[in-house]
Amino acid sequence: MQFKVSKDFIIEVEQLIQSKNDKQLEVLLNDLHHADIAEILDELDFDEATYIFKVLDSEKTAEILLELDDDLRENILSRLSPKEIAEELDELETNDAADIIAELSQSKKEEVISELQDVEHAKDIVELLRYDEDTAGGIMHKELVKVNENWNVLTCVKEMRIQAENISRVHSIYVVDDEDRLKGRLSLKDLLTTSTKTPISEVYIRKLNFVKVDDEDVEVARIMQKYDLEAVPVVDEMGRLVGRVTIDDIVDVIKDEADKDYQLAAGISQDVEADDSVIELTKARLPWLVLALLGGFISVTLLEGFQDAMAIYKELFFFTPLIAAMAGNVGVQSSAIIVQGLANNTITGSLWNRLVKEVSLSLLNGFILGTILLLGSHLLLGVSYEIGLTVTISLMSVIIIASLIGTFIPLMLDKFGIDPALATGPFITTSNDICGILIYFSIAKLILGF
Amino acid sequence: MQFKVSKDFIIEVEQLIQSKNDKQLEVLLNDLHHADIAEILDELDFDEATYIFKVLDSEKTAEILLELDDDLRENILSRLSPKEIAEELDELETNDAADIIAELSQSKKEEVISELQDVEHAKDIVELLRYDEDTAGGIMHKELVKVNENWNVLTCVKEMRIQAENISRVHSIYVVDDEDRLKGRLSLKDLLTTSTKTPISEVYIRKLNFVKVDDEDVEVARIMQKYDLEAVPVVDEMGRLVGRVTIDDIVDVIKDEADKDYQLAAGISQDVEADDSVIELTKARLPWLVLALLGGFISVTLLEGFQDAMAIYKELFFFTPLIAAMAGNVGVQSSAIIVQGLANNTITGSLWNRLVKEVSLSLLNGFILGTILLLGSHLLLGVSYEIGLTVTISLMSVIIIASLIGTFIPLMLDKFGIDPALATGPFITTSNDICGILIYFSIAKLILGF
Repeated sequence: MQFKVSKDFIIEVEQLIQSKNDKQLEVLLNDLHHADIAEILDELDFDEATYIFKVLDSEKTAEILLELDDDLRENILSRLSPKEIAEELDELETNDAADIIAELSQSKKEEVISELQDVEHAKDIVELLRYDEDTAGGIMHKELVKVNENWNVLTCVKEMRIQAENISRVHSIYVVDDEDRLKGRLSLKDLLTTSTKTPISEVYIRKLNFVKVDDEDVEVARIMQKYDLEAVPVVDEMGRLVGRVTIDDIVDVIKDEADKDYQLAAGISQDVEADDSVIELTKARLPWLVLALLGGFISVTLLEGFQDAMAIYKELFFFTPLIAAMAGNVGVQSSAIIVQGLANNTITGSLWNRLVKEVSLSLLNGFILGTILLLGSHLLLGVSYEIGLTVTISLMSVIIIASLIGTFIPLMLDKFGIDPALATGPFITTSNDICGILIYFSIAKLILGF
Repeated sequence: MQFKVSKDFIIEVEQLIQSKNDKQLEVLLNDLHHADIAEILDELDFDEATYIFKVLDSEKTAEILLELDDDLRENILSRLSPKEIAEELDELETNDAADIIAELSQSKKEEVISELQDVEHAKDIVELLRYDEDTAGGIMHKELVKVNENWNVLTCVKEMRIQAENISRVHSIYVVDDEDRLKGRLSLKDLLTTSTKTPISEVYIRKLNFVKVDDEDVEVARIMQKYDLEAVPVVDEMGRLVGRVTIDDIVDVIKDEADKDYQLAAGISQDVEADDSVIELTKARLPWLVLALLGGFISVTLLEGFQDAMAIYKELFFFTPLIAAMAGNVGVQSSAIIVQGLANNTITGSLWNRLVKEVSLSLLNGFILGTILLLGSHLLLGVSYEIGLTVTISLMSVIIIASLIGTFIPLMLDKFGIDPALATGPFITTSNDICGILIYFSIAKLILGF
């Protein structure tokens, strides 16, 4: 039942564009959901996409604009006049309009705002642009239904019908006092089942969750998930109702947060996508590779320092990549569990208990892996018993230390208010490579005495 | 305004439990949201938590049960009789009740079901237990509001009021025919603004999104996000309306999916949390470490094969961890971008274009990193020009190959229907370690000729 963009469909659209058959294009596209049309435009080149954009009504194109890839949106916006952009924005909810305006240059921003027809809408957009995008204010909608606590249900229902006209989902009706301060809420369902003569003050629910306009978006997401809310009102410093955040906004916050953590774990430090430019991708990836390279310089220096061992125990050098890799893998595992636990609020108990647990885990893993290594190095690789035991003891020590570093660093970063996800990925693998090699050769020196 | 569990509050609760002051406990806790009480119980030991559980009403405890940590829930359920569990479940929505029953042993499951008071509820729960948990059927609710297309608005509103009694959020009213087949929907807002005499067939919207009961949950999430839906109806093979999925269920699906990818990238292959047991954590982590260890055996063998070089060019061996680390990091970056692109449906264009792009990116990164390495190895590490150049050329080749492997493997896995996230993490780092070392020494042999 869902629409699927097919190759044939794209070819048909391209042919209609080439023959400038606007009527047929409209017939073909008007029945589709704006998200589907956006998917089609993403498959076309910029000129074709802009052509279609100009064929369709602004009611439709405004919604399409929101769903496009960033590059294509930027390109299309650059081809529209401030007046044309303003026409699109007049069709959108304030927060969507504000998001698009925020992408424009400062001068174009002002021109577009001055062209907006609906003054109330323009005022709301300007207000939203003031808030940091990572706060409740930055993700909230201005559109909501509110009633005065001094009204009765009849006035309320009438007023509500007028307000609800412009709102796609009502969720809750908020109750405010004469100063616009949030007092409580009414549910739509309650209104359906209450007699119209009842005064509002008798039916509204006084206890409700709300957030402050400068609360962080991830905190808003946490509260909405914890209390299973589909919408939450936002108040300013004076307790006045200024907007509301709905669950679909929170879905984006959760996805962005998860994507960011995943990218940091993989050594990608900016929000990039597979289709971004080579320069954008390099900016996100290169810094971590430079860090790893500099870490590599340290490991070279360490190995140079132990080069005397090469004359007698050259096999030791064959095992360095193995030790370094195990240190890196163990470290990433430990830090990933902590980072995820911190993000999901599932870490309980003291730091001390956490470290004790990690050591027990490492002892168990280290014992099993050490046994495989001891047998494998002797039977498969034909390494002498002496060297095999040295490598095994080193591996076990390295696993314990690496897991402690992996546990400790994200917890410490979090304590100092730094994003613990920064610790995962190349940072942990590089520092654990270095520690691993140092521990390995130090233990070898102790045992073998070179 | 949000409740925060404080240490003092926990101590107060513990003292009240010790003095068996049930009345005061009820006063203290009854005003709190069930999610907050669950947070408090998670901080207590099992005996204390069970004590509180028995003090509160089942209306409250049923909701609390859903929010508890898995361990604590399992423990509490093991202390309740089938009859007591059934009393809790009678208070819950069918899909929440089914989730809890699914955690019980087979024999307890049947006993609990036979103790359920509400026969309709029991029937719905048994139906839900049939569906795979990763499908639309596995996450849907049975609770919804539906009306017959042959009714008029008046009958519909009356019927709807009855049905809505048990439903926390109505969202949409679904319209079915006499055979219960889904025909369309009515919005609550429309009902508020339509005269009661209108026949339903005249007002309902015939075009609507729906999913099939065996559609995958991630597919349902994708559709709901794309079309910005807060609820979607679920139909069976015959097109009959069997349930609906709401946006809050999808939030969990999105979070779980992101968590899983993140864990795979970090080398953790099962859904575990920081607070799981050492055995659970080992099961999730050890397989990847064994894989890395076996990969390490291969790298040892490779290095042994090149040991002749040691007599003349011992410095080459100091650079192996550096080369291996760079190969691993580049590979993880490339594969992570592809995995995320596949998950978010943002990958367009052909495989060939993708690989060309990755090569350009690697050339750029390789050139910059190579320059740093060439200068650094000479100036900082005092390595001869000859060796420095050899290492640099190898690094650049390794970066290109590693990024191609990182791009190619997840794309191939995806093509064959295997989760591409399996490719990230230890799998990529290990295979790239091996390839990196092989390429490095082969190039060195070509240049230096040992």
